[in-house]
Amino acid sequence: MTATSPVLPARTPDSRAASLLAESAAAVDGGVMTHREFFRWLDERREEQAQRVERVPFEALRGWDFDPRTGDLRHATGGFFSIRGLRVRSGFGPVREWSQPVILQPEIGMLGIAVREFGGVLHLLMQAKSEPGNVNGVQLSPTVQATKSNYTRLHGGSAVPYLDSFRVPDPRKVVADVLQSEQGSWFLHKRNRNMVVEVGPEVEAGRDFCWLTLGQVNALLHHDNLVNMDARTVLSCLPDWRYASGDSARDHTSALHKDLEIRSWITRRRAEHDGAVELIPLKDAEGWRRSGDALSHARGLFFSIVGVDVSSGRREVPAWTQPLLQPHGTGIAALLVRNIGGVRHALLRARAEPGFLDVVELGPTVQCAPENYAHLPPADQPPYLEEVLRRRSAGVLYDTALSEEGGRFRNAQSRYMIIEVEEDFPTSAAEDFRWVTPWQLDALLKYSHHLNVQARTLVAALRTL
Amino acid sequence: MTATSPVLPARTPDSRAASLLAESAAAVDGGVMTHREFFRWLDERREEQAQRVERVPFEALRGWDFDPRTGDLRHATGGFFSIRGLRVRSGFGPVREWSQPVILQPEIGMLGIAVREFGGVLHLLMQAKSEPGNVNGVQLSPTVQATKSNYTRLHGGSAVPYLDSFRVPDPRKVVADVLQSEQGSWFLHKRNRNMVVEVGPEVEAGRDFCWLTLGQVNALLHHDNLVNMDARTVLSCLPDWRYASGDSARDHTSALHKDLEIRSWITRRRAEHDGAVELIPLKDAEGWRRSGDALSHARGLFFSIVGVDVSSGRREVPAWTQPLLQPHGTGIAALLVRNIGGVRHALLRARAEPGFLDVVELGPTVQCAPENYAHLPPADQPPYLEEVLRRRSAGVLYDTALSEEGGRFRNAQSRYMIIEVEEDFPTSAAEDFRWVTPWQLDALLKYSHHLNVQARTLVAALRTL
Repeated sequence: MTATSPVLPARTPDSRAASLLAESAAAVDGGVMTHREFFRWLDERREEQAQRVERVPFEALRGWDFDPRTGDLRHATGGFFSIRGLRVRSGFGPVREWSQPVILQPEIGMLGIAVREFGGVLHLLMQAKSEPGNVNGVQLSPTVQATKSNYTRLHGGSAVPYLDSFRVPDPRKVVADVLQSEQGSWFLHKRNRNMVVEVGPEVEAGRDFCWLTLGQVNALLHHDNLVNMDARTVLSCLPDWRYASGDSARDHTSALHKDLEIRSWITRRRAEHDGAVELIPLKDAEGWRRSGDALSHARGLFFSIVGVDVSSGRREVPAWTQPLLQPHGTGIAALLVRNIGGVRHALLRARAEPGFLDVVELGPTVQCAPENYAHLPPADQPPYLEEVLRRRSAGVLYDTALSEEGGRFRNAQSRYMIIEVEEDFPTSAAEDFRWVTPWQLDALLKYSHHLNVQARTLVAALRTL
Repeated sequence: MTATSPVLPARTPDSRAASLLAESAAAVDGGVMTHREFFRWLDERREEQAQRVERVPFEALRGWDFDPRTGDLRHATGGFFSIRGLRVRSGFGPVREWSQPVILQPEIGMLGIAVREFGGVLHLLMQAKSEPGNVNGVQLSPTVQATKSNYTRLHGGSAVPYLDSFRVPDPRKVVADVLQSEQGSWFLHKRNRNMVVEVGPEVEAGRDFCWLTLGQVNALLHHDNLVNMDARTVLSCLPDWRYASGDSARDHTSALHKDLEIRSWITRRRAEHDGAVELIPLKDAEGWRRSGDALSHARGLFFSIVGVDVSSGRREVPAWTQPLLQPHGTGIAALLVRNIGGVRHALLRARAEPGFLDVVELGPTVQCAPENYAHLPPADQPPYLEEVLRRRSAGVLYDTALSEEGGRFRNAQSRYMIIEVEEDFPTSAAEDFRWVTPWQLDALLKYSHHLNVQARTLVAALRTL
């Protein structure tokens, strides 16, 4: 990753990165900051960044208004984001046509983690960042987490720290750089640039930042609501350090399906699912009701749009108001894994979420809020949901409550689970599902829009096991 | 590619396909049909499929009308495609905001070539197909070239031959399967599924079909207006048979840029170019005028939308009318190549065409109709255009007139050129350009939307040299 690194052998362009990452993953404590020091620092950050977040009625939002003609919720400047209506026609699933509110934010934001060697061990520059929608205020974020309006300072505000490390980096210092989607049920065509860039000793940790080894970050991924969604997606875009070149587990013969079969399956699902998605005036979203306090589904399902007022004790941070999307119920995002021929495979589902730019991406085995399915008959329950809920601890390798992005979503928590099933669990699966190896996921993650944001969290978690 | 083929060694999953393709590419004549027999067969097809195509005024189009409210040109059934307005705001280039007509066809069509072994040599099942926009009627097409409306028989019509070989193939028989874009200046978000599937002896060539070796098809790619656009894009999605495993030229050290650098460059261009593109009523497309005969740009630039009446001498083929997009002037699509460190690299340009689903794809070094730039100052001429036009024969490896899709475009010809430049030609290039190796192009072609349709034609041509 440095300009002076020796020329690498054929077809292992990531091998130096992989071995540096593997060493960093093995460093589970110590380094620049011990585990204990980290939590003390985090507590201080929490105290210092304490925010008061209050639900307020829509009329208390400053600068945000419902357009009288369309019912769309927008900011007076036309900036930030807007809440619009979406009409979806799908040829698949129990509900084939619906409309809903959706967040429109047609910009590509930047999510970047800077990495730097300390004593030969790579450390990641992580940020303690409070977001109004977080259940617990501060979570651990990437070095840079900025919308384009943020970092071009369209709305004023201070400069984004460390941004220059990512905007025009030395190409040889880039470890990962790929556009990835966000929640396709809540956002229309939202995606961010996920970057990891190696920096030199000139880059130091500011007050709200800390250097952690990959092993430390991986351990923190097992804490509830600590590593935020933006950090998790960037981590998933790192090359998988567990499969350095020459690793026999990477042998293509040990995957249940050839790489081409997996790509062909995704292509087919995309071609079959080309349903129609169109923006409509929010007031025309059938089945949704607006009161003074919330825009909600008539049956109380899915989510509501609400308003919040955010203030801090600090004079230099002005108060603001904004809408947030508040999901109903706690989500489940579960990945079944099993040993097939000596290699751990994961069961991915090809999901058509209406907000995806390219129709279908691979998601977890199960991804839903069970409450939203309570009114549907057993045949329309998500496949494998019962299987996941039935297991208490047998085979559960990972079970952590994690938050979705607190800048847009309020109290959006999901229970992320990785469950190992027995070797008599069928390897054949319905057309929507395929067993995929970790290095096949790694290859798909190098190109945009193959794994959804929930699956990316689970890939990051899987690599910690 | 067959179910009984031996297990392949690590990281060369395509090596059997590559070696079969290499053998087929080496078979330049003979096989099922000689070169001479092919041309005799093609002449017969041309005679039999002769169409009379006449320009007609819009009012003579049957079933097609301009919507009185929007001015959009649509079919009464809502099917086929429509001509809409597009407003484009771009942060780059000499013209930063414009509106234009665009073809909207929100369906994923199927382009498939069936391959079959004859005497151990792979042959491709090619089709002689007439299209109303072709300058010469019949061209050589893929085995299947069908819109989704076609193949689901939405508009009636007869079944598409050979479709079943592609709809749900044995996954082990799939050689290529990927969604690829079409002209981003003329279509909004159009893409097709590009497939190559191996079939067995039960599949025989019908009257309008013939079996050709890859070597024969490659030779035909050097004939003007013979191999159609749809066949060329499918050919480009074949794994590159010239770089089988173990080929020293594939050594990663011999590429000017690492694979990750190329992907990072594409990511950056996409993130920077996130301009706004929106559908508008066609009547609101500023600078465009509609007469009874054509919808054209006020200054006669770019293209016109016109109507045609198509009939054949054959009773079983009913006559029909339809709109076509007729470009003004002959396009140029030129690829500069040069030897860098013993490996031929090609100079690709990251292009933001408004109709691309993912903002930016790699195009040829030069892609334009020079007429459209005649009114602009020298500084706004396309880079390298003068370089390309200046060369008469020195270094010209490929120079063939080829047609774009005759089902939507009328007389749309471009001069496709591959020009080898000297080793003192600079390897550094402006931010829009990068020198890329053939196997890097091959990797990008395995994933959707990295190379535009003109670049894909040039990749197919490059592999014939």
